[in-house]
Amino acid sequence: MATSSLAQADSKLREQEVSESSPMRLRMEKFVKEQQREIVKALEEVDGKPFRVDEWSRKEGGGGISCVLQDGNVFEKAGVGVSVVYGTLPKPAIIKMRANHKNIAEEGNIPDSLDFFAAGLSMIVHPKNPMAPTVHLNYRYFETAKPGDSSGNSGAWWFGGGADLTPCYLFEEDAIFFHQQLKDVCDKHDPAYYPRFKKWCDEYFYNKHREEARGIGGIFFDDLDEQTAPREKLFAFVQDALKSFVPTYVPIVNRRKDMEFTDREKHWQQIRRGKYVEFNLVHDRGTAFGLNTPGSRVESILMSMPLTARWEYMYSPEPGSREAEMEEVLRNPREWV
Amino acid sequence: MATSSLAQADSKLREQEVSESSPMRLRMEKFVKEQQREIVKALEEVDGKPFRVDEWSRKEGGGGISCVLQDGNVFEKAGVGVSVVYGTLPKPAIIKMRANHKNIAEEGNIPDSLDFFAAGLSMIVHPKNPMAPTVHLNYRYFETAKPGDSSGNSGAWWFGGGADLTPCYLFEEDAIFFHQQLKDVCDKHDPAYYPRFKKWCDEYFYNKHREEARGIGGIFFDDLDEQTAPREKLFAFVQDALKSFVPTYVPIVNRRKDMEFTDREKHWQQIRRGKYVEFNLVHDRGTAFGLNTPGSRVESILMSMPLTARWEYMYSPEPGSREAEMEEVLRNPREWV
Repeated sequence: MATSSLAQADSKLREQEVSESSPMRLRMEKFVKEQQREIVKALEEVDGKPFRVDEWSRKEGGGGISCVLQDGNVFEKAGVGVSVVYGTLPKPAIIKMRANHKNIAEEGNIPDSLDFFAAGLSMIVHPKNPMAPTVHLNYRYFETAKPGDSSGNSGAWWFGGGADLTPCYLFEEDAIFFHQQLKDVCDKHDPAYYPRFKKWCDEYFYNKHREEARGIGGIFFDDLDEQTAPREKLFAFVQDALKSFVPTYVPIVNRRKDMEFTDREKHWQQIRRGKYVEFNLVHDRGTAFGLNTPGSRVESILMSMPLTARWEYMYSPEPGSREAEMEEVLRNPREWV
Repeated sequence: MATSSLAQADSKLREQEVSESSPMRLRMEKFVKEQQREIVKALEEVDGKPFRVDEWSRKEGGGGISCVLQDGNVFEKAGVGVSVVYGTLPKPAIIKMRANHKNIAEEGNIPDSLDFFAAGLSMIVHPKNPMAPTVHLNYRYFETAKPGDSSGNSGAWWFGGGADLTPCYLFEEDAIFFHQQLKDVCDKHDPAYYPRFKKWCDEYFYNKHREEARGIGGIFFDDLDEQTAPREKLFAFVQDALKSFVPTYVPIVNRRKDMEFTDREKHWQQIRRGKYVEFNLVHDRGTAFGLNTPGSRVESILMSMPLTARWEYMYSPEPGSREAEMEEVLRNPREWV
């Protein structure tokens, strides 16, 4: 274990059971690990094939659990990962984060380095059937140590995350259901959340160089701290959002997984997969951050890649086709609820 | 046509025939266009299928010719592109480039913007047969206008480029032949070139997050200006280097294109293709620059993508296999000549 002040504090606390009075770090860790088990179980029931489970540790502090189902009956690739990381931010990173989180350190008194903690669940599911949509979800908690404090008190903290759907063929009922479920969770906590996070998602998951969205969106948010709501309330929201995944995605995939499809439809799926790869490798900040972090587990980051993808020069779907209909929606994101 | 001083000067000069007394801009443009035709012809002879030829123009100034052969008899995807771009550098870009090219502008007198010219040939060939290597090549010339001058005189100029080979299976004779041909061209101009550019290539085409080279290398260089050699001498070198492509690659691909291969070997090729995609989208500066340049032709940039690629979680070749031998060479780049 690293000598981070947060890691040291937590290693003692880990001897006791995690409760509501435990630090948010341990509560979030416990929660995402429980949810990982739930989600893996639910997806195994859909697929019929078990996930491979790899536990790993990071010599710089922390570790994770990567669960992957590859070449299953329903899923081409499904990866559900949890990571819990203790590390140290260098001064330039502290200064950068301070733009959004003033209480990371006092102005004019920024430390040369600062311990941080990050825990999250991240997942992507690529089904085999081109009628069944790819889904991505990620919820994470980030915290920095209080400068000068060595007993595990936090300075700044924030939550981030979201969920978004990427179909190859548009089924309006799926799009509406997916968004309605997310809106219901958001509305339960704050009616301002859904419109704000839906827009944020459309903006974030945008394949700029293609001038089209990655998929039909969902919700996305980052840097949610006490300026948005108290920590306890945000944690409650993140819990509800993550818990809504199984009852949202499983009905959609069950409706689509056994539909008949043609070679042409499978081909279109492969073209769309290529664009998914482009987004993940060119634009996604999480992937870039992971690949550039020394000691990161590359296989856990790139388990988001589809099993196969295709790039054809100047490919364009036939006007009026269902493929062209999908492209149209990606170019002009809609309001679904 | 844009109102760039360089573009204006060249539009007049284009009415005459390009000769040795023409500006380097027009000589390089003429040369790469000739070479594009030569290379396309040579690859068509190998494949038996014609290239598709698309001419395009950029509303900001300049344009190009993209030649693509997709799903041919021998080549899965072959893209040979020429681009000739007139544009304007903003001040931060001028300051950045000045680190390597002092004569771009006088210290303390850096203009707010500066016209530039860039011309180059860029190509990638992905053969179908997993025994036949992928090859990449790019030679380019960059020039900036003289600050305050509107008659087409250049301020700073430089050449960049190189060629590198990416086999899925190691054939030492191919690797040695490829490097020997490049070394011969280099040595003709300066015996210091090959060792310097070979090393530069190994460093540049390195998939950092995978801790392995993209392929078995070749040569790579950038920013070659009067500090290396006079412009005329560098142009002569770049001409020889580009002209050596056909007699270097065609014999290699002809030796490999009809070799028998198994499903397992095709599968390994698809895994390697995935890593090629990762390098191009995550690390390649040219691709990143292109995708982030407004008005760029995305299909011409991404014609470098293979037709298909594959990502398997935790894939690792069997110890002692030919696949493991290849990986070993990628992890520990060799001296081939």
